[in-house]
Amino acid sequence: MGLDAIEGVGRDPKRGGYSRHVFDPAERELREWFVEQAQHRGLAVRCDRNGNLWAWWGEPGRDAVVTGSHLDSVPGGGAFDGPLGVVSALAAVDALQAGGFTPSKPLAIVVFAEEEGGRFGVPCLGSRLLSGAIDPDVARRLHDPAGITFAEAAAEAGLDPAGIGRDDDALSAIGTFVELHVEQGRGLVDLGAPVGVASSILAHGRWRFTFTGEGNHAGATLLGDRRDPMVPAAEMVLATRIAGSEVDGARATVGRIVPNPGGTNVIASTVDVWLDARADDDHDTRRVVARIREMATEAAARENCELTVVEESYGDTVVFDSGLRDTLSAALGGVPALPTGAGHDAGILAAHVPTAMLFVRNPTGVSHAPEEFAQESDCQAGVAALATVLGRLAG
Amino acid sequence: MGLDAIEGVGRDPKRGGYSRHVFDPAERELREWFVEQAQHRGLAVRCDRNGNLWAWWGEPGRDAVVTGSHLDSVPGGGAFDGPLGVVSALAAVDALQAGGFTPSKPLAIVVFAEEEGGRFGVPCLGSRLLSGAIDPDVARRLHDPAGITFAEAAAEAGLDPAGIGRDDDALSAIGTFVELHVEQGRGLVDLGAPVGVASSILAHGRWRFTFTGEGNHAGATLLGDRRDPMVPAAEMVLATRIAGSEVDGARATVGRIVPNPGGTNVIASTVDVWLDARADDDHDTRRVVARIREMATEAAARENCELTVVEESYGDTVVFDSGLRDTLSAALGGVPALPTGAGHDAGILAAHVPTAMLFVRNPTGVSHAPEEFAQESDCQAGVAALATVLGRLAG
Repeated sequence: MGLDAIEGVGRDPKRGGYSRHVFDPAERELREWFVEQAQHRGLAVRCDRNGNLWAWWGEPGRDAVVTGSHLDSVPGGGAFDGPLGVVSALAAVDALQAGGFTPSKPLAIVVFAEEEGGRFGVPCLGSRLLSGAIDPDVARRLHDPAGITFAEAAAEAGLDPAGIGRDDDALSAIGTFVELHVEQGRGLVDLGAPVGVASSILAHGRWRFTFTGEGNHAGATLLGDRRDPMVPAAEMVLATRIAGSEVDGARATVGRIVPNPGGTNVIASTVDVWLDARADDDHDTRRVVARIREMATEAAARENCELTVVEESYGDTVVFDSGLRDTLSAALGGVPALPTGAGHDAGILAAHVPTAMLFVRNPTGVSHAPEEFAQESDCQAGVAALATVLGRLAG
Repeated sequence: MGLDAIEGVGRDPKRGGYSRHVFDPAERELREWFVEQAQHRGLAVRCDRNGNLWAWWGEPGRDAVVTGSHLDSVPGGGAFDGPLGVVSALAAVDALQAGGFTPSKPLAIVVFAEEEGGRFGVPCLGSRLLSGAIDPDVARRLHDPAGITFAEAAAEAGLDPAGIGRDDDALSAIGTFVELHVEQGRGLVDLGAPVGVASSILAHGRWRFTFTGEGNHAGATLLGDRRDPMVPAAEMVLATRIAGSEVDGARATVGRIVPNPGGTNVIASTVDVWLDARADDDHDTRRVVARIREMATEAAARENCELTVVEESYGDTVVFDSGLRDTLSAALGGVPALPTGAGHDAGILAAHVPTAMLFVRNPTGVSHAPEEFAQESDCQAGVAALATVLGRLAG
């Protein structure tokens, strides 16, 4: 399939799985690998102003058929989320080239930067910058856990940080965008299908809740004298489950919590808690977050702590182009259409260009974890489907 | 006072205050500074098998009068906890030398390694090793958050890891141990005294609770399908406050929590939570921990998660030698005696040799935080008291 070529890159011995974050050594090694693979197929590669890689079959130009995904991962992520879309695109080009196909439109494979937001906190950062969905000043100031800004990391990777932001040339070149991705749920398992097309993506955002109390000694400070921000932070985690359960279909998660200073024998002075919330639409998502915020505010007040909340990213519900979806489904023999709770660069681009997604069956539904998996035969079905779709769109 | 000489070493720009952990560059710089300071006063310095530094005034030998403290800090700690006892010991030697005092017994200043357990998790590691309170095999295998073992770190710092463990020569040399420390509470403020002597230390331990669930995608996994270990971990934090409040005088704290993998858009697969629990005696401390464990076990079961609990360190209540305490209090004009909730190397040594502590007033009581403070005049009173005590014991 091609994934075996990169299986040793960016392994995380501590968390298991892979940690490949934008512009870190592992992700840069994957970029180099992609450039080699593309050049090997006669594709000309360029890096755009926002750090996204484009490999062109034929002259770059308007009304292009573009496919691709990303090479970065969540911390301790699986092997398929992202890279499967890239290696499948390369394999689909192989299949088309082997069949003597010559595209009548420009065709490109794109690798988007920082899709997971695993380093700088904003998911789909490369496609957001390209499409103008994030202010470049805001993006330049984003920083990773070590305090390195996106501007600094981009400069170190050879980009001009002053040049990031909306890229109308790149955007207007895209005629159609199709992203292949491993499914992150059991929809295709339940439907008994190896491949499907996406119908929609949930509304989705990330919020950072910062609880501030008073750092002190864990042994010498009486319980009654404390302003311990860990207590309302814990109540907020439980509020997340409560509020998520009150809204049908909503998902609300705390997967990251950082007490400062983080010593065993130290009452924290601040605790940062990140909320990931998603629901069918904007109204439901906002309702979940407002309810969590309300409960967190009450919990903070009970402990004499302060609470500030920052929205780090937000994207409304994405409904993919229904005409394109139906065309692709029909071209693939009537494969099913299904929604997803996971965000994708395709969801960002869908606001600008006709966009579709192909999903490959995931036998357990597990994703963002080392156990993420897809069978070889299903991956091959995905490549065949993508080749069919690209041939149809660019033929 | 001498603290100004080291005020630039080991500052933590992220947390505020200081992060000085055993054998890290900051702590090693402080060790070098201490060796220079001791040599400047004509004291001969040696490092024992367990990484503790000893500066001898006169020939090392039995029935020695030993004072000192530690130079490491908690993450983001204050300037006084540890270093005040070391600089006060140097200043007390200055005062005695200036007064023409010649000790009739050997006199030493000791700097203990890893008092806070800030790097390897076990507090008072240097004094525990020296006194045989921890199995050297267990100590060698302790590891820091980066996975470096104590054996590796010790070897890198020039120690022979095979040689660590109970040091009867060092232990039997100590006739009396007196540790001066900033108070970590407001006892002396309430008593209106700049200096006091310690009466006792609470029973104290650390436990690591590991909740294991199933890592998965935060957007694609329905709430009802989750085994999210963050939920019982949050319930455990709240149980800590409940259980601590049920036992008079108990303190129970969660200051450190680490979800794995720790991504915003990832349901954690495991969450480690560290409990710091203390109470008047063994029975009360065990009761608090058992109650937290009971509630955490129930919370884990409700989320279909597993829970394991490891006791990382434990020390029973310390009651300091009452004869020595009364002698020192009288020598200092009847300064008050007071208990503390904070652990100290003096508490470890108290099981083996007559041991006492002097506390210096802390105007806010805050400790283990950048705001930790003691006034210059109170620190000078501490030095004078320590010089009086050393002169009395070694005269």
